[in-house]
Amino acid sequence: MILAEIITIGDELLIGQVVDTNSAWMGQKLNEIGVKVKQITSISDDKTHILTTLAEAKKRADIILITGGLGPTKDDITKKTLCDYFNSELIFHEPSFKIIAEIFQSRGRVISETNRLQAFVPANCTVLLNKNGTAPGMWFTDEKAIYVSMPGVPNEMKFLMESEVIPRLKEKYSLAPIVHKTILTQGIGESFLSDLIEKWELALPPYMKLAYLPSAGMVRLRITASGENENSLRIEVEKQTEELQKLIPDFIYGFEGDQLESQIGELLIKKGKTLSTAESCTGGFIAHKITSVAGSSKYYIGSIIPYSNDLKTGLLNVNPELIKKHGAVSSEVVTEMAQLVRKKLNTDFSIATSGIAGPTGGSDEKPVGTVWIAISSEKRTFSWKVQLGSNRLRIISETALHALNGLRKELITHE
Amino acid sequence: MILAEIITIGDELLIGQVVDTNSAWMGQKLNEIGVKVKQITSISDDKTHILTTLAEAKKRADIILITGGLGPTKDDITKKTLCDYFNSELIFHEPSFKIIAEIFQSRGRVISETNRLQAFVPANCTVLLNKNGTAPGMWFTDEKAIYVSMPGVPNEMKFLMESEVIPRLKEKYSLAPIVHKTILTQGIGESFLSDLIEKWELALPPYMKLAYLPSAGMVRLRITASGENENSLRIEVEKQTEELQKLIPDFIYGFEGDQLESQIGELLIKKGKTLSTAESCTGGFIAHKITSVAGSSKYYIGSIIPYSNDLKTGLLNVNPELIKKHGAVSSEVVTEMAQLVRKKLNTDFSIATSGIAGPTGGSDEKPVGTVWIAISSEKRTFSWKVQLGSNRLRIISETALHALNGLRKELITHE
Repeated sequence: MILAEIITIGDELLIGQVVDTNSAWMGQKLNEIGVKVKQITSISDDKTHILTTLAEAKKRADIILITGGLGPTKDDITKKTLCDYFNSELIFHEPSFKIIAEIFQSRGRVISETNRLQAFVPANCTVLLNKNGTAPGMWFTDEKAIYVSMPGVPNEMKFLMESEVIPRLKEKYSLAPIVHKTILTQGIGESFLSDLIEKWELALPPYMKLAYLPSAGMVRLRITASGENENSLRIEVEKQTEELQKLIPDFIYGFEGDQLESQIGELLIKKGKTLSTAESCTGGFIAHKITSVAGSSKYYIGSIIPYSNDLKTGLLNVNPELIKKHGAVSSEVVTEMAQLVRKKLNTDFSIATSGIAGPTGGSDEKPVGTVWIAISSEKRTFSWKVQLGSNRLRIISETALHALNGLRKELITHE
Repeated sequence: MILAEIITIGDELLIGQVVDTNSAWMGQKLNEIGVKVKQITSISDDKTHILTTLAEAKKRADIILITGGLGPTKDDITKKTLCDYFNSELIFHEPSFKIIAEIFQSRGRVISETNRLQAFVPANCTVLLNKNGTAPGMWFTDEKAIYVSMPGVPNEMKFLMESEVIPRLKEKYSLAPIVHKTILTQGIGESFLSDLIEKWELALPPYMKLAYLPSAGMVRLRITASGENENSLRIEVEKQTEELQKLIPDFIYGFEGDQLESQIGELLIKKGKTLSTAESCTGGFIAHKITSVAGSSKYYIGSIIPYSNDLKTGLLNVNPELIKKHGAVSSEVVTEMAQLVRKKLNTDFSIATSGIAGPTGGSDEKPVGTVWIAISSEKRTFSWKVQLGSNRLRIISETALHALNGLRKELITHE
C-alpha cells in the first residue's frame, strides 16, 4: 500500500480563521487512485517546525503533499525551508515568470519585485506550472519519498493536483486501476435504501465495495472497484449500476456531480418547455436553485411567492373556501396553486409548495415539517406530502430536493 | 505562551469523506482565551499511531485536545490507547451510564451492551459529563501536559469545550483576560475600508489589535484586547468601537453573529411594518434569506419574481416603454418594479432587483455584474447601482447583502 501524508502550512488554519477543506479534497483524490492518507498535519509558517514535520512524515510515508506558505507576502519560508531540507538553492525559473507576467498583464497591473520572487524555485525541483496563480508547484524526490509543494489557494491546488500530481503518481507507482461510480439518490433514507438493495450489495464481487454517503435529503452511493484491467472494471461497474437502477429506479436521480436544477434545465431546453413556481413554505428557495443555473432565463419565467394567505387568495386567486375547508397546507390548496401559477404565468410546467417550516404553526394533525408539493402541466396535476423533521432550514432545502426531483421524473415520462 | 495541539482521530477525515471543521472551531476558541495552537494532526483509529502522535505532541505542547474515536462501534480504541499511555485501566462510571440510559429512554430505545461500554473510562481521568451524547469527555494530567479526549460529533465537542474545557483551562493557567469584539461591515472592500480607518487603527493602544476578516460581500473587523482587568478592557473596546462607528457609520451593520435578515425582521416587527420583494436577477434568493428567519411570516407578505421581461410587463405591469428605452437593468425599471410590487402586494416596504448575473447578457455599457437595486416605501423610492464582478453565485449573494443592508438603513432612519 502506497502511503501519503498531507502537510498544510498557515497560521490561518491554526487560529481557526479558515477551515482546511483542501486536505479532505486531496484525501478523496488520493483514495480514488488507491493511495492511503496516513496523516494530515497543519502547522504554522515556522522553519524549524516545517523541517521536523517533513522528517517525521518521511519516516511513515511514500508521498508527502505540502500546501500553503507560498504567497507573495509569506517571505518564501516554505521554499527556503525546502532548499535547506534538500540542501539546494533558489534559482530563477523563466517559464514560471512568464505565467506571472501574463497574469499581471491581463489584470492591467505592474509586476512587483515581490511577485518576481515567486518565480524563484529550489534548483533540485521539477516545476509544475500553475496556470491559475502566481506560485508554481514543485515536485521533489529523494531516496525515500516524493514531495510536492503547492499553493494553498483551493483552485490553484486543485488544478495542480488534477493536471500534474495525480497523473504523475499513477505513472510512478503503476497503481492498480481503481474505478469509482457515484450514484445519487433522493427521497429515501439510508436504512430503507440499504434494505432495498441488500441482496444486490451482498452479491457484489469481492473486488467491488459499496459506500453510503448520506447528506441532507439525499444519499450518495459510491461503488469502488479495483483490479487489473481498467476497461473491464468500468464495464463491470456499469453492469452493476444497471442492476441497481432496476431495483430503485424512482430514487436514483443522477450520477457523479449531477445537480437536479441543472438536469431539469437540460430537460426543459431539450423539450422546449417553460417553468414557473409558486412557493409558500420554501419562500423562494426553489426559484433560487433554478436561477443559480446559468442560462435558466431560457426556460424559467418566474414565480409568485404567496407567503401570506391573503396573497394566495389575492394575487394567485386561490379559492378562499379551499383554504378555509382544508387549510393552506393541503393537497387541495397546493394543487390549485400549481395550476393557477402555470396558467397565470403562461408556462408549460409549474411547481407549488405549501408547508409548515416551523418552529411554530404545527398541530397534532399537521406537525412542523408537514409539506405538500404539487407539479402541474397541461397533461396532469398531482401532489404529494412529505414529512421532514423539525429543522426550518432543512425543511426548506429538502422540500426543494423533493420538488425538483418530482419535476425531473415528470419531465422524463412526459411526452 | 501556553501552547496547544489538536489531534483528530478518524478514517473519515483521511479519506476526505468529512471535512474537519472541529479543529478550526477549537482553534478559534483557544485563540480567544490566549492559547496558541501549535499543530493540528489528523490520524486514523490506530493504536500505535495514536501513541506516537501523543508522545510527539507532548514534546511541544502544554495542552493536547483529542477528538473522535469514541463512538460505540469504534471498539474503544482511543480509550484503550489512553489507558496504555497513562498506564491505567478502564472502570465503570455510574454518572455517565445514567446519562446514556436517559438518552436511550427519551428515544424509547433499549440500551445495548455496546452502549453500556461507553460508560467505561480510564481510572486516572476526570470525567467531563456529556449532556449531548453517549460518549463522556475525559480530562487527564501528567507531569508535563493536560490531555482532553472528546467525541468528534461537533455539537458534543462544542458542548464539552464551552461548558468544561475552556473554563478549566482559564482557571488552571490563570490566563490573562482577552476581550474580542467583531464589527460587521458591508458595502466596502478591504482596501478602501483600511484607508478610511487607518488613522484610528494606528492610534489603537498597544494592547489592542485589529484583524480584517473578509468574506464574500462583507468584511468583519475583529478587535482583540488583552490585559489585566477584563472589565476595563471591555469598556476600552466599546469606546474604540464607538470611535470606529463615527468614521464608517454607513458600512457597519452589526456586531458578532448579527444577520441582516434577522435585523430587518426585528425592525419591521418593532415598527409594525410589512415587506414585499420583486426580484429579477436574484431569482428568489432575497426572499429565501428573509424567509429563512423563523417568524418572518409576521412581516413578509411575499414576492413576484419576474424573471422574464414578459412577466415584468405582464404580471407586475412595468411600462413596456421604460424597458424599451432604458433596458430592464436600469434605475427606471427597478424603481418602477419596487413601487409596483409594494402597491400590488399592499406592503409598507419593498425591495426590487434587476441585473446581469451572467455569464452571458453583458455589454460594454452594462457588463456582467451590473445590478440595480431599489427600495420603496410610501415616503420615498430610491435606487442605486452596484458592480459585482463576474461570478454568477457571488453576484446573486452580494446583491442580496446590498439590498438587505439598504433596507436596514432605510428602516432605521424611517420615521
